[in-house]
Order: sequence, then structure tokens, then C-alpha cells
Amino acid sequence: MQGQYDKAFQAELRDLMRWRRDVRRFRTDAVEAAVLDRCLSAFSLAPSVGLSEPWRVISVESSEARAKALANYEASNAEALAGYGSDKAKLYAGLKLSGMREAPVHLAVFSDDGTAKGSNLGARSMPETRAYSVVGAITLFWLAARAEGLGIGWVSILDPVQLTQDLDVPNDWRLIGYLCVGWPETEEKTPELERAGWEKRSPALFVERR
Amino acid sequence: MQGQYDKAFQAELRDLMRWRRDVRRFRTDAVEAAVLDRCLSAFSLAPSVGLSEPWRVISVESSEARAKALANYEASNAEALAGYGSDKAKLYAGLKLSGMREAPVHLAVFSDDGTAKGSNLGARSMPETRAYSVVGAITLFWLAARAEGLGIGWVSILDPVQLTQDLDVPNDWRLIGYLCVGWPETEEKTPELERAGWEKRSPALFVERR
Repeated sequence: MQGQYDKAFQAELRDLMRWRRDVRRFRTDAVEAAVLDRCLSAFSLAPSVGLSEPWRVISVESSEARAKALANYEASNAEALAGYGSDKAKLYAGLKLSGMREAPVHLAVFSDDGTAKGSNLGARSMPETRAYSVVGAITLFWLAARAEGLGIGWVSILDPVQLTQDLDVPNDWRLIGYLCVGWPETEEKTPELERAGWEKRSPALFVERR
Repeated sequence: MQGQYDKAFQAELRDLMRWRRDVRRFRTDAVEAAVLDRCLSAFSLAPSVGLSEPWRVISVESSEARAKALANYEASNAEALAGYGSDKAKLYAGLKLSGMREAPVHLAVFSDDGTAKGSNLGARSMPETRAYSVVGAITLFWLAARAEGLGIGWVSILDPVQLTQDLDVPNDWRLIGYLCVGWPETEEKTPELERAGWEKRSPALFVERR
């Protein structure tokens, strides 16, 4: 029966979620268009508030656009570094926080907060749900990409307003994330920030009751 | 080799994404704790900005707390209905937009915007990435639940500040979504809003280049 999943699939899905990592160390070889398109088609399978499908994706390809994005990241990263005390600053400075120089594919993903699609259903009291719909779509894309062996690195150390201007997109598009996509140098099951000693994961989710 | 996925798994993952629907029509029978716990453990596998793991989950169980949430939804829904012109209002009034009366499990999911975990890495210029991390975790939970046959309905027709107060959670917790969880009455591959004629899905994702 369609829409039914057995224990073996459930276990492999869990395994995929465990191996889905934020990747910052990429090989520079190209990603075939057909593979990328298959992964991108997962966007259209995401839930969206009111069926508004507010996701907008820009493939950042020109050397000019990439240079602006990289400069944006480097300025934001320098500001972030300046905000840490000496021990944390030393650790921060040693982290590799973006694969923008190596990743062959760069995607800037936006939410069209002004879309008429969906007629505002579900977004009246919580308009931020449009942005959340885009995050859900990115999450599906991330899993689809990982299932193909591709790595994704979500860069958020950016001035989002500056990037929106630099990419010349409409004013009511809001930057959700800048994604580096490519073949990872290594497969990892432990987050890079944990391996580098920045932070530890909690052992389990704690659910409170009301 | 671990972390490698074949074509059959990729196809089944795509199938799962297609059958993942927002469910508003639930059977009232209980969800076993072990099944729910398995699904909830997917939260801890989600990417989070700076490894901040800002997700906070409240299981809304008492009749008092559920009554407040339902009243909140009904008030927000009446306000939303009042905002539509006659044709759209008639269609809106006929939609079933929440399964709060039937679903056996209610989860209010928050982002702890004040968490010290992750030391603000990646969230300095885009603090909204904490909320986005929670949305990613909900998306993984949604897929894990669907793989077990469970349906999820994300209710956003709510006053989030009121719900935060009614559930007596810390002030810096931000409501991301109120999730109804249970066994769906029917399995559906087409969104309910599309079947009801509210909105149509776009045929494909359009990617612009820069």
C-alpha cells in the first residue's frame, strides 16, 4: 500500500538524519545539473502555510555576485569574532565556518513575504510562518541532497539586507539562508562544532507537560 | 559503507515527502508513548545554528491548557474569517483548519531565543536562525512521524503571545508552532487546501540566476 513504510526504511531514514551534517569542507568538482535539479525538486514537496509556496531560490553564479557574498560573510565574521572574549575568540578564529571559496554551487534562498499565493491563510497572526515554510523546504532539500551524497553548508554569518540588495531581488524577499552545495571532503556523523570543541549536543529532548 | 544511500532509498524518501501531508482529520485513538518518543528523538538530529539546540517542546495535556489553546485558535480563526471578502469567506468557513478537538497529542514547540548554548555563533547578524533551527527540527519530526504512519497538523491560526502566557513558559521562548499529532483518518497525497479549491501548487521550482 502506498504511503506505508517498513522498519528497514524507518531505520535508514534515521540513519540519513544522523549523517546529515552541515558541511564546510567541499571538494571543488562540479555537481551535475540533473543531480542538483532532483534535489531542488524537494522544495515543491514541502509544507507551506496556506499553500503559499513562498520559497524563492537564486543560484549565485557570477564572479561579481560571489565576490559580494564572500565580502559580506567576511565582514560579518570579523564583527562576530570581535564580540568574543579571548579564549572563545581564539577557538572561533580557528573554525571553518563557510565553504564559500570551494563549494561549486551557491544558493541564496528567500521567503517572498509579500506573496498573494495562499491568500494569507494561516499567516494572519503569525506572518513569520512564511519564512518557516521556506526553512521546511530547505530541510527537505538538505535530506534529498544528503541521500545523493551531496553536502550542504548553511551560512548565516551575513548581513541579510546587504545580500538582498547585492543580489537585486525584490524588497519584500527576506533572506532565509545562503547554502553552499557540493561534494563533501569527508563523511561525518558528528557536527564540526562538536569536533572542534565549540559546543556539545544535549543527550536527549526533554519534553515538559502542561 | 555508512552514510551511503541507494536509488531505492532515494525513491522511497521522495515518496515519503510526497505522502507527508498536513493532517487535520484525526482518529481519536491514543498514540503509544514509545512510538511518539521515537519520533520526538528526531528533534535532536536536526541542524541548529551554532549547535544551540534551541528547541523546547511542551506536551499540552491538561483539559485547562487545551481549552485555552482551543479558545485561542477559535478567536484567531474568527478574526481571520472576518478579513475575507464574501466568496473567499464562504470557502474559508468551510475549511477544516485544525484537528485540535480530535488529535490525541498536542505539542507546543518553542524557540528559546535567550539560550546561551552555542555562544551566539551564526546568530549575531541573523538571530532568527534560532527559530529556523526549530523549524528544521519540526520538519525532521514530521517525516519520522509520517514514516510511522502518524499525521501531523501544524496550527498557526493562534495568537502566539497569548499561548506563551497561557502555557506559562519563559518570556524569551517564542512560539514556532502548535502541532496536532495522531493517526490520520485517511492517507492523502494531495494537500487538503488544494482538494478544497483554496489554492493550487506550482508545477515546479523556478531558480533564477545571478
